[in-house]
Amino acid sequence: MQLPVALLDTLRGLFPADALSADAAECLAYGYDNSRRQAQPDAVVFPTEHAQVVALVRACRSARTPLVARGRGTNTTGASVPVAGGVIASFERMNRILRIDVENRYAVVEPGVLNGELQAALAVHGFFWPPDPTSSPYCTVGGNLACNAAGPRAVKYGSCRENTLGLRAVSGAGEEFRCGVYTSKGATGYDLTRLLIGAEGTLALITEATLRLTPKPAARRTLSASYTNVAAAAAAVARIMAQPVTPCALEFLDGQSLQLARRHAGDAIPGAGALLIVEVDGDADALANAANAIARAARGDGLLEMRVAADATQVESLWAARRALSPALRTLAPNKINEDVVVPVSRLPELIDGLADISAKYTIPIVGFGHAGNGNIHVNLLYRPEDPLQSANAPDCLAAVFELVLALDGTLSGEHGIGLAKRDFLARALDAQALALMRGIKAQFDPDGILNPGKLLPDAGP
Amino acid sequence: MQLPVALLDTLRGLFPADALSADAAECLAYGYDNSRRQAQPDAVVFPTEHAQVVALVRACRSARTPLVARGRGTNTTGASVPVAGGVIASFERMNRILRIDVENRYAVVEPGVLNGELQAALAVHGFFWPPDPTSSPYCTVGGNLACNAAGPRAVKYGSCRENTLGLRAVSGAGEEFRCGVYTSKGATGYDLTRLLIGAEGTLALITEATLRLTPKPAARRTLSASYTNVAAAAAAVARIMAQPVTPCALEFLDGQSLQLARRHAGDAIPGAGALLIVEVDGDADALANAANAIARAARGDGLLEMRVAADATQVESLWAARRALSPALRTLAPNKINEDVVVPVSRLPELIDGLADISAKYTIPIVGFGHAGNGNIHVNLLYRPEDPLQSANAPDCLAAVFELVLALDGTLSGEHGIGLAKRDFLARALDAQALALMRGIKAQFDPDGILNPGKLLPDAGP
Repeated sequence: MQLPVALLDTLRGLFPADALSADAAECLAYGYDNSRRQAQPDAVVFPTEHAQVVALVRACRSARTPLVARGRGTNTTGASVPVAGGVIASFERMNRILRIDVENRYAVVEPGVLNGELQAALAVHGFFWPPDPTSSPYCTVGGNLACNAAGPRAVKYGSCRENTLGLRAVSGAGEEFRCGVYTSKGATGYDLTRLLIGAEGTLALITEATLRLTPKPAARRTLSASYTNVAAAAAAVARIMAQPVTPCALEFLDGQSLQLARRHAGDAIPGAGALLIVEVDGDADALANAANAIARAARGDGLLEMRVAADATQVESLWAARRALSPALRTLAPNKINEDVVVPVSRLPELIDGLADISAKYTIPIVGFGHAGNGNIHVNLLYRPEDPLQSANAPDCLAAVFELVLALDGTLSGEHGIGLAKRDFLARALDAQALALMRGIKAQFDPDGILNPGKLLPDAGP
Repeated sequence: MQLPVALLDTLRGLFPADALSADAAECLAYGYDNSRRQAQPDAVVFPTEHAQVVALVRACRSARTPLVARGRGTNTTGASVPVAGGVIASFERMNRILRIDVENRYAVVEPGVLNGELQAALAVHGFFWPPDPTSSPYCTVGGNLACNAAGPRAVKYGSCRENTLGLRAVSGAGEEFRCGVYTSKGATGYDLTRLLIGAEGTLALITEATLRLTPKPAARRTLSASYTNVAAAAAAVARIMAQPVTPCALEFLDGQSLQLARRHAGDAIPGAGALLIVEVDGDADALANAANAIARAARGDGLLEMRVAADATQVESLWAARRALSPALRTLAPNKINEDVVVPVSRLPELIDGLADISAKYTIPIVGFGHAGNGNIHVNLLYRPEDPLQSANAPDCLAAVFELVLALDGTLSGEHGIGLAKRDFLARALDAQALALMRGIKAQFDPDGILNPGKLLPDAGP
């Protein structure tokens, strides 16, 4: 496919030569994401200013050409893959931290700033922004907002929707607007800010975000608890979340994840059927009590061993092992299907049991780990395309996982979003009328359907 | 006005005789709210089931008759006053707590349950729902959600949008739907839940809500700090919010508020130019440190005295005085204009100075108190209609207050919403294109404009 000549001319007027490419080889790198899906964009542009984005959207709308916003492609659902071709707007150069307002606990940033860069800049002032995906050093705040990303800390501090005050954006109609507030409270009109968060660039392109900051806790303590099997660990998670001390991280690794993790971190990771990594934070004086409350709840049938990380090195090795899991699994099974389903925490034992049954039925190994405090498990189907049986079974196996999750009052995604990977399942997860309302909102914000076509919302039936 | 006969017949089929009234005298009581505005509805119905609400909306839509949802009328903006007549749906009998799920930290409730009843039911399990308006014993959760209500605790725990997981609702088109999740995380489609929260019943009627619960902190400590003048207190608020310990309440009373409060609570309230009431909560072991951090930040120019409440009686008298303020001011000035503007906390000194200038210019006494930790000040214009000069000046005085707030990066409402009171100012507070998007959403959810007409969104220009 090629861009219409008139559009390309317009883009050449909008962007300097080094901020626009229509060369197929150069564009290639902007057509994939961490879902391992790929498609070829017709051009890539690198906006640096809000006004450029406004003109870009208007030009693409005039030419009825798809426009896909891109952070750094760490997305796992194909949400940034340009399946309908068109123009990629890579925000990597629109990456300034515009303001850190400590007194009012907010920061104003451009979408291309890296999550990790932002955290480092905030740490100097004693604050942080709670969303912290494992890909924090490589992923952008704009991408985080597009997916309603989260991470381990969300169990205590929430995801993007709980930690964003306002946005500046350009709708698919080419209209620019600001929404939200600079204050920690607001009841002035409909909540457009949260509507754009998690919309995966299908309603508007975000050009600026006002983020709510949280003070860094004075101290933190990290525990690990190993169990004979995953069901015992899942039951412990439910007990921990039913008592009053909310951990700032409650991560779960199943037995296979543990074996992988041990390769990275050695003895810091116990050999067991399942492991929990739990962190509590707060005032130093209160940590002992908080850790004791967690330890009490973690005890129960199947507990093998509980350890408190003695020093920063032990803490770091626990987390390094946890962070290494996703890439390590990818190395083992390059075409693994990685989902991030969520169930109410009390249903985790049923989820874990059900996944074992599904794995057996479809003869596909399933490895699970993730943010158990939110009931958010990264379910990895280690599917090998060269195995004909697994190949035939994989789609049904995935469908069975989603059916199980929905039957347990859960939802398809906790923090990765829908993208391409789950859009065909969305109609099962959502109420039909809620889906119809979402389609109506899409039609209003993006009347010609140019923004990230083919993502999130399933195609309407005949 | 009278209802169309066909509609009244339909309603008689839907509601038992004791759940429907078209008698003008009986309807009268459902036509006012705490804004002291009043209008006469043509009928009042008392739904008890979701299915009734679906049929009710469809019947009103067929008849092109306005339909206004009502909790208990504690709203201060006229949002529940039926200015276009039509049917009031009073949710006072649809008031069951359907489920309290401690393990998964959520409660499912009907919209008519009182906030205070819910809090009492949750306290048994060691949890609370953070929104706690001063009217908690009399206001409904449905009304709280409609306004995105908050209260003193919001400074630490957020408002309705941060504390609601999902909703069941009926759009103005008569379509029923569920949105949101039963989990503490979700990235599955557009956020319809937050869109309905704060929409003041103009998009849909909420028939069920899934509320996120928070564990009750083990202990709390209450301090008060008095200052020579409001500017000194406002500066202290900014210092308190710029340090890491987030109080669970940070309330402000100006000198005139203090005089009133002393009538209720006597010596527990110091005579001074301004007072802060500050609470910290958490583990008992950590409270001393937290209180010390607050006390350090509260010290500065103009501090008169700091007290730590010695016992529960002193704490209660501080709060009783604070709670009595709004009704007491109403007694003094029955037609007072009560706004709940918000500015970034560091701009509070400018707000307070600016309000003094406005008060002098328009010769209208202005009394301020409220949730200073959020920069959310209840600004009371003690306007007496019988004074011709004040009467002439009041509209300009109010407009000047809003202009000041917007110039300080603030917003019109922190927790009361827009209703009738502020809708003519909404276009000044919102970006023109954001307002246009809100109108589009309204037209989509409520194509015939039957839901709470004349509220929140200003009439479109010619």
